[in-house]
Amino acid sequence: MDSILKDVATSTRPSGDAAGGELFDSLRLELRRGCLVLAVLAQLHVEHYGYTLRKSLADAGLEIEESTLYPLLRRLETQGLLTSEWREEEKRKKRFYRLSVEGERIFELLLAEWNRINDSIGRIVRKER
Amino acid sequence: MDSILKDVATSTRPSGDAAGGELFDSLRLELRRGCLVLAVLAQLHVEHYGYTLRKSLADAGLEIEESTLYPLLRRLETQGLLTSEWREEEKRKKRFYRLSVEGERIFELLLAEWNRINDSIGRIVRKER
Repeated sequence: MDSILKDVATSTRPSGDAAGGELFDSLRLELRRGCLVLAVLAQLHVEHYGYTLRKSLADAGLEIEESTLYPLLRRLETQGLLTSEWREEEKRKKRFYRLSVEGERIFELLLAEWNRINDSIGRIVRKER
Repeated sequence: MDSILKDVATSTRPSGDAAGGELFDSLRLELRRGCLVLAVLAQLHVEHYGYTLRKSLADAGLEIEESTLYPLLRRLETQGLLTSEWREEEKRKKRFYRLSVEGERIFELLLAEWNRINDSIGRIVRKER
């Protein structure tokens, strides 16, 4: 029922707006993609399993779908930036992640890069106003 | 000769470092990709052609290859965010770009999103220190 309502709501929007909305969504995703890696690495200075990691990212204002987060965690582990460990907690097996030594090193480099990009964007935006 | 020297320099590095360097480069590119769109849109509140746009981005600290910038400009124009115009200047035909009305609207939305992401990252990083 929910999805039917959503379809109706979309189809009554002017098509120009709908197209603009889709375009903004794709640009927004592109903007967020690289930032999510930085945010996930930052959070994993302390150990988390999927659920608490997602919750702490959301608490900081970065909502992330499970279908985005779990593949990202596996990729970052394959790249050697994370280590993981299965452990039982509250009678359920959970996979806990945290930064590897290499992950800590790369995180510091990425954070410095983020600060540089941020300074550049700030400089451009202030100049154009 | 330059490229030979570079190859030698790379091959004398420990392989672990070289791999870490490549990994960092790819993560750095991923981080920059979404941000470049924002920076390019910000610069094009005033009209630029390719060369002056690249120069003003570099002056703000964002170096960008021609092979990245020109396809990006074409993509943003196809998406309706930029308008362009061929004009002769100093006896050479140049293609000038600037934001469309839709581009201005999308830029404001993306900038707000950028500020939100930035606040979130700042919050996470401060907490973990």
